[in-house]
Amino acid sequence: MPQLSDSAKKHTVSVIGASGYSGAELTRLLLHHPNVELQELYAFSQAGKQVTDLYPSLSCNKSYLPYSGQMESDIYFLALPHGEALAHVPALLRAGKTVIDLSGDFRLKNTLEHEQFYKQKKSPDAVMTYGLPELFKDQIVKGNSISNPGCFATSIILGLAPLFLGGSTPIPLSAVNCTSVSGISGAGRSSKTELSYSEMSENVRAYKVGVHQHTPEIMQALGSSATTPSFDFTFTPMIGSLVRGIYSILNIRLERPEKIETLNGIYQSFYRNAPFVRVRESMTEVRHVAYTNYCDIHIAQATRSGSVVIVTAIDNLLKGAAGQAVQNMNIMLGLDETTGLLL
Amino acid sequence: MPQLSDSAKKHTVSVIGASGYSGAELTRLLLHHPNVELQELYAFSQAGKQVTDLYPSLSCNKSYLPYSGQMESDIYFLALPHGEALAHVPALLRAGKTVIDLSGDFRLKNTLEHEQFYKQKKSPDAVMTYGLPELFKDQIVKGNSISNPGCFATSIILGLAPLFLGGSTPIPLSAVNCTSVSGISGAGRSSKTELSYSEMSENVRAYKVGVHQHTPEIMQALGSSATTPSFDFTFTPMIGSLVRGIYSILNIRLERPEKIETLNGIYQSFYRNAPFVRVRESMTEVRHVAYTNYCDIHIAQATRSGSVVIVTAIDNLLKGAAGQAVQNMNIMLGLDETTGLLL
Amino acid sequence: MPQLSDSAKKHTVSVIGASGYSGAELTRLLLHHPNVELQELYAFSQAGKQVTDLYPSLSCNKSYLPYSGQMESDIYFLALPHGEALAHVPALLRAGKTVIDLSGDFRLKNTLEHEQFYKQKKSPDAVMTYGLPELFKDQIVKGNSISNPGCFATSIILGLAPLFLGGSTPIPLSAVNCTSVSGISGAGRSSKTELSYSEMSENVRAYKVGVHQHTPEIMQALGSSATTPSFDFTFTPMIGSLVRGIYSILNIRLERPEKIETLNGIYQSFYRNAPFVRVRESMTEVRHVAYTNYCDIHIAQATRSGSVVIVTAIDNLLKGAAGQAVQNMNIMLGLDETTGLLL
Amino acid sequence: MPQLSDSAKKHTVSVIGASGYSGAELTRLLLHHPNVELQELYAFSQAGKQVTDLYPSLSCNKSYLPYSGQMESDIYFLALPHGEALAHVPALLRAGKTVIDLSGDFRLKNTLEHEQFYKQKKSPDAVMTYGLPELFKDQIVKGNSISNPGCFATSIILGLAPLFLGGSTPIPLSAVNCTSVSGISGAGRSSKTELSYSEMSENVRAYKVGVHQHTPEIMQALGSSATTPSFDFTFTPMIGSLVRGIYSILNIRLERPEKIETLNGIYQSFYRNAPFVRVRESMTEVRHVAYTNYCDIHIAQATRSGSVVIVTAIDNLLKGAAGQAVQNMNIMLGLDETTGLLL
Repeated sequence: MPQLSDSAKKHTVSVIGASGYSGAELTRLLLHHPNVELQELYAFSQAGKQVTDLYPSLSCNKSYLPYSGQMESDIYFLALPHGEALAHVPALLRAGKTVIDLSGDFRLKNTLEHEQFYKQKKSPDAVMTYGLPELFKDQIVKGNSISNPGCFATSIILGLAPLFLGGSTPIPLSAVNCTSVSGISGAGRSSKTELSYSEMSENVRAYKVGVHQHTPEIMQALGSSATTPSFDFTFTPMIGSLVRGIYSILNIRLERPEKIETLNGIYQSFYRNAPFVRVRESMTEVRHVAYTNYCDIHIAQATRSGSVVIVTAIDNLLKGAAGQAVQNMNIMLGLDETTGLLL
Repeated sequence: MPQLSDSAKKHTVSVIGASGYSGAELTRLLLHHPNVELQELYAFSQAGKQVTDLYPSLSCNKSYLPYSGQMESDIYFLALPHGEALAHVPALLRAGKTVIDLSGDFRLKNTLEHEQFYKQKKSPDAVMTYGLPELFKDQIVKGNSISNPGCFATSIILGLAPLFLGGSTPIPLSAVNCTSVSGISGAGRSSKTELSYSEMSENVRAYKVGVHQHTPEIMQALGSSATTPSFDFTFTPMIGSLVRGIYSILNIRLERPEKIETLNGIYQSFYRNAPFVRVRESMTEVRHVAYTNYCDIHIAQATRSGSVVIVTAIDNLLKGAAGQAVQNMNIMLGLDETTGLLL
Repeated sequence: MPQLSDSAKKHTVSVIGASGYSGAELTRLLLHHPNVELQELYAFSQAGKQVTDLYPSLSCNKSYLPYSGQMESDIYFLALPHGEALAHVPALLRAGKTVIDLSGDFRLKNTLEHEQFYKQKKSPDAVMTYGLPELFKDQIVKGNSISNPGCFATSIILGLAPLFLGGSTPIPLSAVNCTSVSGISGAGRSSKTELSYSEMSENVRAYKVGVHQHTPEIMQALGSSATTPSFDFTFTPMIGSLVRGIYSILNIRLERPEKIETLNGIYQSFYRNAPFVRVRESMTEVRHVAYTNYCDIHIAQATRSGSVVIVTAIDNLLKGAAGQAVQNMNIMLGLDETTGLLL
Repeated sequence: MPQLSDSAKKHTVSVIGASGYSGAELTRLLLHHPNVELQELYAFSQAGKQVTDLYPSLSCNKSYLPYSGQMESDIYFLALPHGEALAHVPALLRAGKTVIDLSGDFRLKNTLEHEQFYKQKKSPDAVMTYGLPELFKDQIVKGNSISNPGCFATSIILGLAPLFLGGSTPIPLSAVNCTSVSGISGAGRSSKTELSYSEMSENVRAYKVGVHQHTPEIMQALGSSATTPSFDFTFTPMIGSLVRGIYSILNIRLERPEKIETLNGIYQSFYRNAPFVRVRESMTEVRHVAYTNYCDIHIAQATRSGSVVIVTAIDNLLKGAAGQAVQNMNIMLGLDETTGLLL
């Protein structure tokens, strides 16, 4: 991104879809980021309202504006419902803007899988660099358009990647079963009865078992595919009585057993340059990562028969959305990856 | 109600508006009540669904039916949004049915106050016996149509009544300030964004300060009036991060101070025959009354200058709605007041 | 149990260890059970207190008594911490009492596994009939001493049993990975910092991965063994931000794939006479079973490669503890299994 | 504090009692404060542990050290249980250190009230500048030892102060009744059973009605006294199902009625230079201030008879403790009041 980094002035940035929870987190992070100037916050149903009408905790005196193709900033973040970014991104890219999209619209290379899991058509070229910095930093640093990973996908890919990519050769495995509990904010700023406090307090509920749209994203990032998987894979997402966080239990069946110390070594080595991944020897919890951009990983069990249990935790709105998006921006701008993200 | 009690057979009962939270609690209570046979469950937007589609925890194999004037049962409970019972109750009463209405439609004698607080017109004769058993049992036992009290109103009136009605003469007071925290189920089975888990977890919010519709109901039950009050009265309702329960702090300014022992004596005496009111010498909590029909009352402070602090707790869906409705039915049927309510 | 059932009078029952959460649920259930008379409630650290000091929601005017070998009742429930029932049960059995023990002291036949997982010695004969009615009713009905299953174990065994015992031959499987979220009440009435509201609100935490004491109990009930397992088995228990409930995700790897309809048929058939197990075609949630004795089972996914995902839900204090204990008592007494448990 | 501000280098700071919730918030704020260098974190029962053992979400690689009179820093924050700061502060002051104490040990000028409400003796000179910046900035800026206000006290004093101090003359009032809901973190990092998740989820409980130690602190700040009050005052503290936040309902009885617009004008004017107080025309909620240093104030009702209802909200760990302490430090250091507090 030479057009941005050769200047001492701040990069200008706007957010399209700023009124949802991810948009509000982006707003908070960008307002306090030392290298950018937050310009406009665009919204659709909430256009016209003050930011503080919806989010009084943000010290932000802007209003949400309707978006009709404005191009005033250097960088655009899009935090729109799935399917809506497709309409705005091409024009932004043609105008030379840097784009970071938080939706699922540009994540999948396989259009059939996109169609199957998102129930939406898209053209084969609607794919952008997959913005998981711990795996694809080389591509991100050269890119100008980023598709920011899904929240569940982030927590699962980071917990599995060293097995696939960490050693001199991948560790052969036959099956991965993922079970994740998400905070309810992952469903967005919603008015659904089933997400009301009265329904979700003191509750846990699985949903979309086997059909969640992060399934092909996970397989793709690991070099496999949801339609022709190279190992058995299941993913059971759940929501529980919490607002923020994703807690994933990864049950892995290795072809041959590995000692827990060996695995810890592989993971520590794989993430040695990743400031936001903490491979921890003690158990992690959602509270350990809430309101941070960290992904905690703990290898909890490795049996003599080859079963491995790995636990990961992230904040779904930060490392699972807005925080990771800013991390991607930092990398593209040549800044320290952690700029504005250690608060 | 001689037409009901001269028979050994069970009384038949139906619920109109059975798919909301109060309706579900009524369903649960009536299914296990030894003296009634639950016949039909009527609903509007949910008509056609199985009860267990909405409430799998209820052991009930009925479906919600649309209501179009059916008259098959002896007793009808109505648990409808405010304004909707007005359309159904007159026909039921003309047909000789026993009616217990849980809405606000028939609570207020003063039609101007009704209009002001409910923003709805009603005719001056649309008033039924106010079903607060601890105060008006004599009228309830003779009645065949009951207007069931509001949840906040129940928790506040029971906490104040002995001062007005408990001694040989009322204890003169100049001001009452009520502050109540309600569980979110009091807002009904809702799809409003501001009642979503993500908005209400770890939150407290006041609302309708000074304009809540239970204000005139409280004043009326105490022999006063919202429009011409005989003492200063304010009421601040709040919702907090809980599903069930109402916790009320009553700040009372007596004209002359009373000792806490004197007040305890007056309260104990006033409620000596009330099986569901517990005047307790130790602090009460929402948990002490959740899932019960009890109203706990604790006199927490009585200063030498005449300030009194009283704390009350109820379950808003039981003593504040469905439980009290069944208590009223028991009284009308000549049964023990606690029948089916001590589970 | 002929000594109990040949009489019209009520069976007398006492609870040893009545002041914890399971003990309080037992108290509630036994107080309202039509066929028993609750006599004494024994406690240790809480002896001398009123029941309503600890549990004001219980309509119970008894006090907790210290236990020193009293024998006044026909039936004894023990709800003590692990290791403490061993001291009391033998004398009760010698005196001809019916005993239902809710601890882990008498569950495991393999004393080495008991020692490994409970870190406590026991004699090889300290085993009682394993009281999971849906699997072992024939033995329970003939028994006079019951070891009540663990809460996680109940939710997992019921979700797996039809695969092992449901068809004409077991369905061959190679691996089972269990991930369960428990309500925090499962940890007992506790004063640990890590279970405080401030630490556990909005949190999820795994613990005892691979070493939880319900592991050998599950394997034993399924005809296998933790030390010489016939299939790969892992169990990851978690606690989350809820008080009551266990929600288990069972990831099963079949040797050959089965259709979801076939599995549903096997499960429906296996539990056709089990009034508290509901094999449901729609997703279950903790809320669907909270405050009930039901175990809900939903077969969520069955892939062409043989991966199966099954979701189960129970209330840990009812079907996972006190409710199941009363269900066992009902069976021993020749009563309908559901007596006193459908409230 | 000229000895500190005449230098370009950072001020050094240490925290005594750093392992509790207020201490952890101080740690977080001071780590990211641009003008200070956090040196040592002292703890007592937790000495020897890593900060990340207790608070993995803090990016802090320090350990807790035992405190035995070290004097290495310019500034000392004390976040100790009541009664323990008395032993450490005098030596720090004699050594010329700047001290900000978050306990109640140095708040009350009246030693009899201190003794009555804290049940602890103290010498009459153990009083420091009361660090409520919105009222006492002139004294704070000149001070070198600050007693940081209590959390309830902050939320109540800020909601009342303009009536006493805001106009050309005080607005005469006869009574104030305060009802406050606090997050459970206000009780500290605790292992009490009554603060466990299982006891406090879905609960509300009042406590210390009439005897809470913030009562004399509030009266003192308003120019009155708990022992010889110039108006009737009651305070009912509650804890509810939330970790952070204080929500206060202030019921005020004016001697003569004021219009709500007049009151809003007085409040707006009084706080026109207070960056952390927001006098809001719409209702506030705990969520609006959680994780911020703001105090929101909303005048909700003003009746023709002189009853006024004011609602205030703060984060108990920030504006109610650590945030306000840093705000005080900023003022003493001559920095912008908001430095390091707008994240």
